[in-house]
Amino acid sequence: AALAAGGAWASEELVKMSANPKDWVMPAGDYANTRYSKLNQITAQNVGKLQVAWTFSTGVLRGHEGGPLIVGNMMYVHTPFPNKVYAIDLAQDNKIVWRYEPKQDPNVIPVMCCDTVNRGVAYGDGKIFLHQADDKLVAIDAKTGQHVWTAVNGDPSKGQTGTSAPLVVKDKVLVGTSGGEFGVQCSMTAYDIKSGKQVWKAYSEGPDDQILFDANTTSLGKPVGKDSSLKTWQGDQWKTGGGCTWGWISYDPQLDMVYYGSGNPSTWNPKQRPGDNKWSMTIFARAADTGVAKWVYQMTPHDEWDYDGVNEMILSDQAINGQPRKLLTHFDRNGLAYTLDRTNGELLVAEKYDPKVNWTTGVDMDKNSATYGRPKVVDQYSTDKQGEDVNTKGICPAALGTKDEQPAAYSPDTQLFYVPTNHVCMDYEPFKVSYTAGQPYVGATLSMYPPPGESHMGNFIAWDGKTGKIAWSNKEPFSVWSGALATAGGVVFYGTLEGYLKAVDAKTGKELYKFKTPSGIIGNVTTYENGGKQYVAVLSGVGGWAGIGLAAGLTDPTAGLGAVGGYAALSNYTALGGTLTVFSLPQQ
Amino acid sequence: AALAAGGAWASEELVKMSANPKDWVMPAGDYANTRYSKLNQITAQNVGKLQVAWTFSTGVLRGHEGGPLIVGNMMYVHTPFPNKVYAIDLAQDNKIVWRYEPKQDPNVIPVMCCDTVNRGVAYGDGKIFLHQADDKLVAIDAKTGQHVWTAVNGDPSKGQTGTSAPLVVKDKVLVGTSGGEFGVQCSMTAYDIKSGKQVWKAYSEGPDDQILFDANTTSLGKPVGKDSSLKTWQGDQWKTGGGCTWGWISYDPQLDMVYYGSGNPSTWNPKQRPGDNKWSMTIFARAADTGVAKWVYQMTPHDEWDYDGVNEMILSDQAINGQPRKLLTHFDRNGLAYTLDRTNGELLVAEKYDPKVNWTTGVDMDKNSATYGRPKVVDQYSTDKQGEDVNTKGICPAALGTKDEQPAAYSPDTQLFYVPTNHVCMDYEPFKVSYTAGQPYVGATLSMYPPPGESHMGNFIAWDGKTGKIAWSNKEPFSVWSGALATAGGVVFYGTLEGYLKAVDAKTGKELYKFKTPSGIIGNVTTYENGGKQYVAVLSGVGGWAGIGLAAGLTDPTAGLGAVGGYAALSNYTALGGTLTVFSLPQQ
Ligand SMILES: O=C(O)c1cc(C(=O)O)c2c(n1)C(=O)C(=O)c1cc(C(=O)O)[nH]c1-2
Ligand SMILES: O=C(O)c1cc(C(=O)O)c2c(n1)C(=O)C(=O)c1cc(C(=O)O)[nH]c1-2
Repeated sequence: AALAAGGAWASEELVKMSANPKDWVMPAGDYANTRYSKLNQITAQNVGKLQVAWTFSTGVLRGHEGGPLIVGNMMYVHTPFPNKVYAIDLAQDNKIVWRYEPKQDPNVIPVMCCDTVNRGVAYGDGKIFLHQADDKLVAIDAKTGQHVWTAVNGDPSKGQTGTSAPLVVKDKVLVGTSGGEFGVQCSMTAYDIKSGKQVWKAYSEGPDDQILFDANTTSLGKPVGKDSSLKTWQGDQWKTGGGCTWGWISYDPQLDMVYYGSGNPSTWNPKQRPGDNKWSMTIFARAADTGVAKWVYQMTPHDEWDYDGVNEMILSDQAINGQPRKLLTHFDRNGLAYTLDRTNGELLVAEKYDPKVNWTTGVDMDKNSATYGRPKVVDQYSTDKQGEDVNTKGICPAALGTKDEQPAAYSPDTQLFYVPTNHVCMDYEPFKVSYTAGQPYVGATLSMYPPPGESHMGNFIAWDGKTGKIAWSNKEPFSVWSGALATAGGVVFYGTLEGYLKAVDAKTGKELYKFKTPSGIIGNVTTYENGGKQYVAVLSGVGGWAGIGLAAGLTDPTAGLGAVGGYAALSNYTALGGTLTVFSLPQQ
Repeated sequence: AALAAGGAWASEELVKMSANPKDWVMPAGDYANTRYSKLNQITAQNVGKLQVAWTFSTGVLRGHEGGPLIVGNMMYVHTPFPNKVYAIDLAQDNKIVWRYEPKQDPNVIPVMCCDTVNRGVAYGDGKIFLHQADDKLVAIDAKTGQHVWTAVNGDPSKGQTGTSAPLVVKDKVLVGTSGGEFGVQCSMTAYDIKSGKQVWKAYSEGPDDQILFDANTTSLGKPVGKDSSLKTWQGDQWKTGGGCTWGWISYDPQLDMVYYGSGNPSTWNPKQRPGDNKWSMTIFARAADTGVAKWVYQMTPHDEWDYDGVNEMILSDQAINGQPRKLLTHFDRNGLAYTLDRTNGELLVAEKYDPKVNWTTGVDMDKNSATYGRPKVVDQYSTDKQGEDVNTKGICPAALGTKDEQPAAYSPDTQLFYVPTNHVCMDYEPFKVSYTAGQPYVGATLSMYPPPGESHMGNFIAWDGKTGKIAWSNKEPFSVWSGALATAGGVVFYGTLEGYLKAVDAKTGKELYKFKTPSGIIGNVTTYENGGKQYVAVLSGVGGWAGIGLAAGLTDPTAGLGAVGGYAALSNYTALGGTLTVFSLPQQ
């Protein structure tokens, strides 16, 4: 591939910058989505002395996901709708250098399924890229805050919205779409970084020229063949098929491939859409330049539980059975953690990362089996088998999965993944719905609760992706809806829905520090260095799907797609409000 | 007076409780409005080590005035409109025990002149008293959060609103009214603490039976005589005369008198309302049981600048010329600090507390003069003399005064007052308006800016009330819109509009500590002790009149009655958001 006009690719700059642990230049810290930092001033020994260094209110109330970017002395802080962006000068007493506030039609709010969240901005080519709630992608001059270009990625009046963070890859900006609860045919799209013109668009379902599959596209080592998606849908149901792309994107610069997952097939009523509903619930490995799929793997064919497959793909290089492998590890909503070979999509490990997962007995790992790679579904928890208008009870995990969007971290030091998890089960009753553009297309009533006999709704776990085993697990009263951070100091950080920032020992999980931030944390912990000092930063601001009751002021237990009842007790601990809290060690 | 049914007066309990520095049982800490605490764990020596102990977001964005109450293990946190109240258990990891959220018609918002602020709740008789924006006074069970009674104090459709903190006095709850920019005939009202029934109501202007004046009511030592108010208004202009009572109330249990000030006469166009406009701009000393005025003192007769007289009355016992006196000290908006004998209203000291004050050359202190006690007005800055539709320029202070609602503190240790001040001048152009109930009745266009040749808009000063002299003065880039706290540790605390909590040496003003809270501070600093540890707490959440540009999203420089332009640079430092930040010394 030729260099982009005007010099090296933005991604080359980003690879260089992300190798410098002082900065935090992309939402996940690096292209591999490890959320690991080489900074080691803060250690397991001294983290107990951590203090709040400074704080910053964003001026927005609802759920604050993602975290700030740090590029040199500049910090970029984003908010949920209306998606403000602040540029803060760390060298000038955190003065606000510019603020950007898009004008957006508030009618987008009711089209957002799971709070008005936004998972962060991207940096590259001297610009900040903001994925607005109204599914516009905007480029802003990073120095001045001036608007550079806008790309229209979707149309909220058709149920398309934006919550995901863009990723800058080479001379492109990649961005997904939300709308799985509105019957959107979702896609991943690449825009030219200079002009905002569309370069490629890859749908999750549809004809091969829309999903960008070719003769070389494989699944589990075998070519998928022609019309691999169309064949798994009845009629043209794929046109309202969901498979949304609202999660995280990873990139391997050596292999030149991007990785991401697709969400639930629409509707949530499985009876209404017979077939495997490909390629919903799928990991995609696509060529960065063309978008053509190299390999795919569908984790939950014919979803019956809303187990979106969008959770992050963490790229690591580890040895399995003594063999160095280029791995992709993925903690799926369905409760299974997958380790694949990211060069070719070979399935290496698939294990439950919460022992309470009961809808499946596991994945068929027999390469010679006709159902190789498919989860074995337990009839009792099959909402399709139980049927329409039947309330299937006690399914674990709940629709928000053993993990949702909250990203895990990976430390090469311990070779462990640090995973914020949900420990929640559900009742699920599908019912018939019909599709109207821009209207909810859900077709199920849910309620959520902790597993029988237990009262805690979350665990923060360490996971060995080579063996598929939990190394240690810490109980949390609520689901851990915050992204983790692993550091070379041997400390792992995460936030809790009540609002605690916690630091634990990477090896043992022992709690070393906690601090109650102003509001529940659904943001992702970040670290950076400035003026010779390591800082840890986190956005609080309760919300997201788990916090939708507080965020949207709902009280009916089945509201918020069933989350309101499950997390009702949260209101005893916290209230809304977006604040960045920045920590450091005290002056010596 | 007989004891209230059911036992001792609530105020006896409060006097006892406010003598215990572990609690903070009324908005100003004590009845004397000193905002002084005997706690001395945090000292000038160790305050530099202060840390943030915990934080709490209120879930409300606009200006957060006042501060929490602490009663034993319970903390009560209030918010601006919609006036939520949280009861937080300090002994249970700051769990929210109850939350109270009144339903109020949002149409009250445009009737509030200076942001949707609320200066705090009151405690007494096992109840929390909330003065709602819609000018209802509500009693809430302090243990359960259950509603007990509601008293309708005013009608927002007529421009009456509520921002001030109630005060519990004996078996009554006293509360004022806002509406000086809407031509309200304002009053102070006492309600029965058990039932919420009205006990007395004292207007600021009108016939003697409405203002509760009798033959013994004096001003500067002389009986005011009959119809003292009516005689100073043209026709029945007193009926739309303002004199609102939106500031702080003090109480002297020995003298059994309450003290408070009245605000500007309506309209802001002085040409339209000839006369002294009594008793606007007046200090009132009233009998607690009956409301009858013992003495009054009008500071700014015939106001031409909106210098509301509502600022707090701080009651202290100090010796003047070797004589122990029961004093009342008041830092008026007009730029003069007054010391009076609170037993009889004798005027002892009246001096400028900002040397830039230029509209007056001072108060006539000659007891034999016909203008005794009146400020001598400089024609050049008289908006009445300059006339309607003339822009009178360079008046110091601006309409928001050398000090506005932000309360000062008094330390008996240093015998100094610690005063958050504004250092702002203005242009003022009066114009003709006509009165319509519930509509703004302002009649002036303003702009605000720092004094000529200077760029700082605030000072934090120490004041000797016996001599009328500044002991020390610290410059601040913006007006100090936060209430001060003085402590026995020799430390004085205040907040800044950019969001810093600052600790300074009570003797010298030397800055000992600062911390950037999430948002600009217009709240009042509070201290308490829990579990053997001293805490300092402050609400941030920029807004109020100075922060109205940010709070209401205004950008026209003359909007917000002229404050928007003056404080435009604030947006480079902070954004909205209500958060309580609580500080303590680190674990030893
Ligand atoms: O299918 C979709 O388009 C879609 C979008 C989103 C979103 O954009 O936030 C969520 C989900 N689904 C979803 O299933 C889900 O669990 C979820 C949680 C959250 C969140 O931010 O807490 N968003 C979403
Ligand atoms: O005359 C009135 O009724 C009235 C009410 C209020 C209020 O209730 O907040 C203010 C004022 N006036 C006023 O003049 C003023 O400077 C002011 C500042 C503030 C504030 O909270 O920052 N309120 C008010």
